Amino acid sequence: MENNPYEIRRRTVAENLAARRLDGMLVWLSPNLRYLSGFTGSNGALLVTAEDAILITDSRYTIQAAQQTTCRVRIASGATVLEAAAAIARLRLRRIGYEPARMTCDTFQAIDSRLPLKASLVAAGGWIEELRMVKSPAELALIRRSVEVNSRAFEETVARLKPGTRERDLAAELEHRMRRLGAEKPSFDTIVAGGAHSALPHAEPGAARLERGLVVVDMGAMVDGYASDMTRMLHVGAPGTKAKRMYRAVLEAQLAAIDAVRPGARTAAVDAAARRVLKAHGLDKAFTHSTGHGLGLEIHEPPRLGRKDNLRLKEGMAVTIEPGAYVEGFGGIRIEDTVVVTAGGCEILTPTSKELRVIG
Amino acid sequence: MENNPYEIRRRTVAENLAARRLDGMLVWLSPNLRYLSGFTGSNGALLVTAEDAILITDSRYTIQAAQQTTCRVRIASGATVLEAAAAIARLRLRRIGYEPARMTCDTFQAIDSRLPLKASLVAAGGWIEELRMVKSPAELALIRRSVEVNSRAFEETVARLKPGTRERDLAAELEHRMRRLGAEKPSFDTIVAGGAHSALPHAEPGAARLERGLVVVDMGAMVDGYASDMTRMLHVGAPGTKAKRMYRAVLEAQLAAIDAVRPGARTAAVDAAARRVLKAHGLDKAFTHSTGHGLGLEIHEPPRLGRKDNLRLKEGMAVTIEPGAYVEGFGGIRIEDTVVVTAGGCEILTPTSKELRVIG
Repeated sequence: MENNPYEIRRRTVAENLAARRLDGMLVWLSPNLRYLSGFTGSNGALLVTAEDAILITDSRYTIQAAQQTTCRVRIASGATVLEAAAAIARLRLRRIGYEPARMTCDTFQAIDSRLPLKASLVAAGGWIEELRMVKSPAELALIRRSVEVNSRAFEETVARLKPGTRERDLAAELEHRMRRLGAEKPSFDTIVAGGAHSALPHAEPGAARLERGLVVVDMGAMVDGYASDMTRMLHVGAPGTKAKRMYRAVLEAQLAAIDAVRPGARTAAVDAAARRVLKAHGLDKAFTHSTGHGLGLEIHEPPRLGRKDNLRLKEGMAVTIEPGAYVEGFGGIRIEDTVVVTAGGCEILTPTSKELRVIG
Repeated sequence: MENNPYEIRRRTVAENLAARRLDGMLVWLSPNLRYLSGFTGSNGALLVTAEDAILITDSRYTIQAAQQTTCRVRIASGATVLEAAAAIARLRLRRIGYEPARMTCDTFQAIDSRLPLKASLVAAGGWIEELRMVKSPAELALIRRSVEVNSRAFEETVARLKPGTRERDLAAELEHRMRRLGAEKPSFDTIVAGGAHSALPHAEPGAARLERGLVVVDMGAMVDGYASDMTRMLHVGAPGTKAKRMYRAVLEAQLAAIDAVRPGARTAAVDAAARRVLKAHGLDKAFTHSTGHGLGLEIHEPPRLGRKDNLRLKEGMAVTIEPGAYVEGFGGIRIEDTVVVTAGGCEILTPTSKELRVIG
């Protein structure tokens, strides 16, 4: 009992309700619900009070909920919103926290309109995400596995890659390898973009064949619910001077950002470290996004590592470090690792070599 | 211009604003946005007024938005919510429809709090979904392609299937085949469940090996944005009497439901047709879900074909027909086709044989 991670997390929430002047916290279906309950079904709500935790779901998940969670489970006979409102009324709660970024307007209205007069939903967004930022050793072990599956899928696929492969076929092959290696799914739609297409940071893989030039591969796995994220660059044929120079600049920026990761460092300082290097190479304007983001149960979660993000890093945070440079008409380069903040600085989890890899 | 399907759809919305006492309709990122604009990026909002249509997105999608849509495109320099509120103010709109099921509370509040005093967001949910129910010939052609890719992936995979394969490996193989055949991705997480596990209608494929007994395979592809959905049953080893009897009952129920599909038929009547057959076989209580659902840009969209759904079917609607029977400890059987309502009744799009397929 003592060691059930979900119970420990719920206790943290329960113990902090009073300080937030809340009688309960209503967590709607989202990774936050999984974080606090262990439940992975597609319909659910969790109500945490000082003494109790109730998971509401429907009859499709009766068996699964009993297996996955130590919460009290309530199977809604009708809509989940009705059952949630009824539970709030039954427990005579007055101020119930909810997450505005995780709840649609109609869910809010359906619950709110059924609450007793003295009860109300109170915005309490970002709280659970904040708890999720620092990972436990067990969570870090899952992220590590996810990173390893992802890197192995990359290695196995790239080892056989031939020039002329279609972007979307390479993406499909990478995702298939992940699955075969134990991933539930990719943590996001795999990006494979060749030549000038690589200049779009969010390119969708298309029917184009990978011919002479840069290829960006941005991929991640979901393993036991935890995400990984990696970007590596390939070059079909020998790279020219411009590609090599740009590659070195981005790599230098990435290493500088990794060097800046340590407990107490500001997220903006990590971003600035990458940006400074790219500026020295005249590429600061070509770096059009932020340096990284947290990851865990979601592929994007706090903290963000952007220009204006002033959070202090803590030991146990898992983040990506992924500066890039994009030149329209020529191509883009991005290099990305998943790293974890350690007492002494950071550990790069991603084992994949950062050489610019030549294909064919 | 005349033939751009997105423009035709937007015109329908524009022409019906007055009847709904709206000055504009704000469609937040969702399949509704794609339906009305053609835009497929991951951040966007569409504001339709009587004379105009503005797509708001960010600088990652400048090129893509210009390629995909004939709307006016506005690239937000800050948050999309700010740009949406500013556009509403600039156009002096008073009553702006929004979709409560498609917008989170924080997005609503961020826009609402920035509107001019005389402007307000008015719930207009379900409107676009209603327009989407009847598919155009071009949409039906895409659904047909999606169905064909899906069935081909099933055939190619099952032809090589050996007893002892793990559920999750079969799921991975099915999804990989789809991709190789031109799907963007599966339209939902593929279900493969063997033996007693098949009694869970929403089983997640696991490490279990497919040994003697029933296997349910529920799969769909996403092709050019359109979904397909099919369930077929396999049996490892020769099926026993109970499995064969249950299979025949479910198949009879499925055919009866398909027979009931025609323009003007009530959705509940289609559901009742399946339920009646299962009742005659003593399996009505084992049929724990509804008979089907619409599909298109989403894997689940209106109409629903359940016990209490009283909509009249129309020519051009694409729906699934998927009765099932689930017996805990023994297993479950479901048979599902994607069909389209035609003038004379319906056409079954799914080409895959409905024999109970014996493996090994």
